[in-house]
Amino acid sequence: MHSVRYEPLGVDPTGARRGRLHTPHGTVELPTFMPVGTVGGVKCVDVERLEGTGAQMVLGNTFHLALRPGGDTVEKLGGLHAISGWQGPMLTDSGGFQVFSLADARKVDERGVRFKSHVNGDIIDLTPERSVQIQEQLGADVAMQLDEVVQLPSPPEVVRSAMDRSIRWAERCIAAKTRQDQSLFGIVQGGLDPEMRRLSAEGLVALDMAGYAIGGLSVGEPAADMYRTIEFTEPLLPKEKPRYLMGVGTPDDLLESVQRGVDMFDCVMPTRNGRNGLAFTYRGPVRLKNAVHQHDQRPLEADCPCVGCRRHSRGYLRHLFMAGEMLGGILLSIHNLTFYQRLMAGARAAIEAESYAEYKRACQAGWAKKPNAESGMRNAE
Amino acid sequence: MHSVRYEPLGVDPTGARRGRLHTPHGTVELPTFMPVGTVGGVKCVDVERLEGTGAQMVLGNTFHLALRPGGDTVEKLGGLHAISGWQGPMLTDSGGFQVFSLADARKVDERGVRFKSHVNGDIIDLTPERSVQIQEQLGADVAMQLDEVVQLPSPPEVVRSAMDRSIRWAERCIAAKTRQDQSLFGIVQGGLDPEMRRLSAEGLVALDMAGYAIGGLSVGEPAADMYRTIEFTEPLLPKEKPRYLMGVGTPDDLLESVQRGVDMFDCVMPTRNGRNGLAFTYRGPVRLKNAVHQHDQRPLEADCPCVGCRRHSRGYLRHLFMAGEMLGGILLSIHNLTFYQRLMAGARAAIEAESYAEYKRACQAGWAKKPNAESGMRNAE
Ligand SMILES: [Zn+2]
Ligand SMILES: [Zn+2]
Repeated sequence: MHSVRYEPLGVDPTGARRGRLHTPHGTVELPTFMPVGTVGGVKCVDVERLEGTGAQMVLGNTFHLALRPGGDTVEKLGGLHAISGWQGPMLTDSGGFQVFSLADARKVDERGVRFKSHVNGDIIDLTPERSVQIQEQLGADVAMQLDEVVQLPSPPEVVRSAMDRSIRWAERCIAAKTRQDQSLFGIVQGGLDPEMRRLSAEGLVALDMAGYAIGGLSVGEPAADMYRTIEFTEPLLPKEKPRYLMGVGTPDDLLESVQRGVDMFDCVMPTRNGRNGLAFTYRGPVRLKNAVHQHDQRPLEADCPCVGCRRHSRGYLRHLFMAGEMLGGILLSIHNLTFYQRLMAGARAAIEAESYAEYKRACQAGWAKKPNAESGMRNAE
Repeated sequence: MHSVRYEPLGVDPTGARRGRLHTPHGTVELPTFMPVGTVGGVKCVDVERLEGTGAQMVLGNTFHLALRPGGDTVEKLGGLHAISGWQGPMLTDSGGFQVFSLADARKVDERGVRFKSHVNGDIIDLTPERSVQIQEQLGADVAMQLDEVVQLPSPPEVVRSAMDRSIRWAERCIAAKTRQDQSLFGIVQGGLDPEMRRLSAEGLVALDMAGYAIGGLSVGEPAADMYRTIEFTEPLLPKEKPRYLMGVGTPDDLLESVQRGVDMFDCVMPTRNGRNGLAFTYRGPVRLKNAVHQHDQRPLEADCPCVGCRRHSRGYLRHLFMAGEMLGGILLSIHNLTFYQRLMAGARAAIEAESYAEYKRACQAGWAKKPNAESGMRNAE
C-alpha cells in the first residue's frame, strides 16, 4: 500500500485524464501544476499568497535544501511542511537533476554522484540511499528516486547505460525507504528513443512504485520531440498511477502534455519569468519592460484575481521593473503562478465536460494573438 | 479652508496627543506611522499586505517618482493613488531631502536646487514651484513645502540662512498651489537652536499652513539633542494643526516623540532593516542571521498577526537570509511594518486611557531585555 493513491475520475476523448491524488496532507485535483519552492519557499511569494494562487501541491528542491540549511536542520525545525508553512501536499525531487545541471567537480559511478558544494566547498556523496534519507528528513508526501541524468543528444550507449543504472538506483531507493507516510515515484528515462523508454518503463513498473515521472525532457530538445516522446511513453505507464512530467514547462507544453495523459507538472518558468518582467496571459506573453506599456492604465489581465491585476495598471508594473523595484517581480511571480493555476483549473473543467480539444484550441488561439509583437511562449524562459 | 483637518481627541498627562487627520481619502488616527513608498510602492510589500499591517497613510518620494517614471507619467496613469493601489490617505515629500542627501552636482540658490539626474544625467531644476507642480501631478492628500536642508552641525549663519530661505520657499509653494484637494505642510527648520526654531515656526505659522513638520532632525545628532529640539519646538506650533516629525525613527524615537506632542512619522527603518535581516519586536531587535536562531522553532513574535509570525519559525526566517532568498526580506519587511503599526496602535490606546507613561515604560523595559545580546535599537539602521 502506497501512502499516496491515484483516483481516476474520467478521460476526455483527446486522452486527457481527470483524476485525484490522495496524500497524507490532502487531495490534489489532477492535472495540476506544482510551483517550485526551491529552498522551502517559492521565490518572492509568501505562503499565503501562494495559497491564493490556487496551488495545491508544492515542490521542494532536495539539492538546495540539503546544502542549505541541510536535512538535519530542516528535520530539527519539524520538516519541510513546518518550515515552509505549506500545509498541503508536497513533493521533493531527488537532487539528481540539480547535481547534473548545477554542481561543480561532478563524478558519477554506480555508487552515486559525488560533487562539490557551492555553499562551503564540501565534497558531497549523493547516493540513492542518501537521497532517500534526506527526503525523509524533509518529509514531503512524495519523494523522487535518484536517477542518472544525461544530456540530449547523447550517444545511445550513454543513454542506455544511464537508463539501466536509474532502474538499479530505483531499487536501492525502495530498499532504503523507511517512512510509511512518504511515497516514492520512479523516473522513466531513455532519451527520445521508444525502445529505451519501453525498457525503462518496464523495469520501473515491475517495482510497483507509487507513481511515475517522465524524466529527461525539456532539456533543450524541440517541442515536437518532447510531445512525441510523451506519446510513446504514456501507454507504457500503469493507468492507475499518477504521471508527472518533470520540469515542464510553457503553458502550451502543459496543455499538449495533459492531452497526452500527464497529470502533474513543475517548472520555474512562471516565477523566473515573473522576476524578469515577463507575464503569461490568456492573450500570450507580455513583456512589461516594453515602452508600449508606459501609459497603459489597463490591468495586465482584466479577469485575473491576483493582487497585481486587481490593484495595478500595466503602466505601474512596467515602472516597477524600469526602476529595478523587487515589488515588480513579486507581483508578476504571483500573477504568473495564478495564471498557471487558472490554466490547469480550466483544463480540469474541460476534461470533465469532455471538451478538452476546444479548450486547448481556444487557449492556443488566444496566445497566438500577439498585438504588441511579443515573442512566442517557448522562448519565454 | 484646508483640505485636510486635524481633530483633537485628547491629551495624556505626559503631553502625548490623540487626534485625527481628516483627508480627502479618509481619516487617519493619530499618532501614526507612515510607511515609505519610495517609487509608489513600499519596497517588497504588496499593497494588500501593506493594508494588512494596519498602515493608514503612506508616504511617496517626490524625488524618486519625478526622476522615474516622472510626474507626467504618474499623472497620465491617474496619479499616485491609482498607480500604487493605495486607496487611503497619502503624503508626498518635496524632493528636497533626497536632493540634499542623494543627488550629484548639487547647486542651491534662492531660485531652488539644481542637480543631475542619476537616472539619465539630465540637469534638473527643483524650485518651490516645480516641487508643488510635481506633487500636484502625484496627487497625494498632503504635499510638503520645498525646504533647504543643511547638515548638522553647521555654522549658525548657514543654519539661519537656510531657515530664512525655507520660509520664503514656503510662501512660493503656497502661491504656486492650484489643487484644492491637496494641503501643504510647512517644515520648521533651525537646527538644534531654540531661537532659530522659534523664528522658523513664527514665520511658517503666520502663513497658516495645513500642518507643520519638524525638519532637519534624525540626521546623525544624538537622540537627546533630537528630543530636546522637539521639546522646545512643539509649543511654537499651533495646537489645532498636525505635527509631523520627518524621517524618524526607531521604536524608541517614536514613543519619545509622541510624548513630546508629535502626531505623524515616516521612516525607512522597518523596511530597510527588514531586508537586512533585522526584526523589531516588543523584546528588542532580533538579528535573524545570528546562529542562535538556527534550530529555533518559535515564531519571531508569538502574538504578532503578520504572515511571517503566523506561519514560520525563526529558524526558517534565518535560513531564508542565509540562503540569500528575497522572501526573508519580504517577510521581515511585513513584520517590521506590522510591529510599527502595533506600537502606534498601543500608543493611541494608552493616550486614550491616560496611561501613556506606563505604556512607554513597559515597551522600553521590554526591548531593554536583550537575551541574545542583540544590539540597541538606535544602532539598527
Ligand atoms: Zn494577475
Ligand atoms: Zn510578525
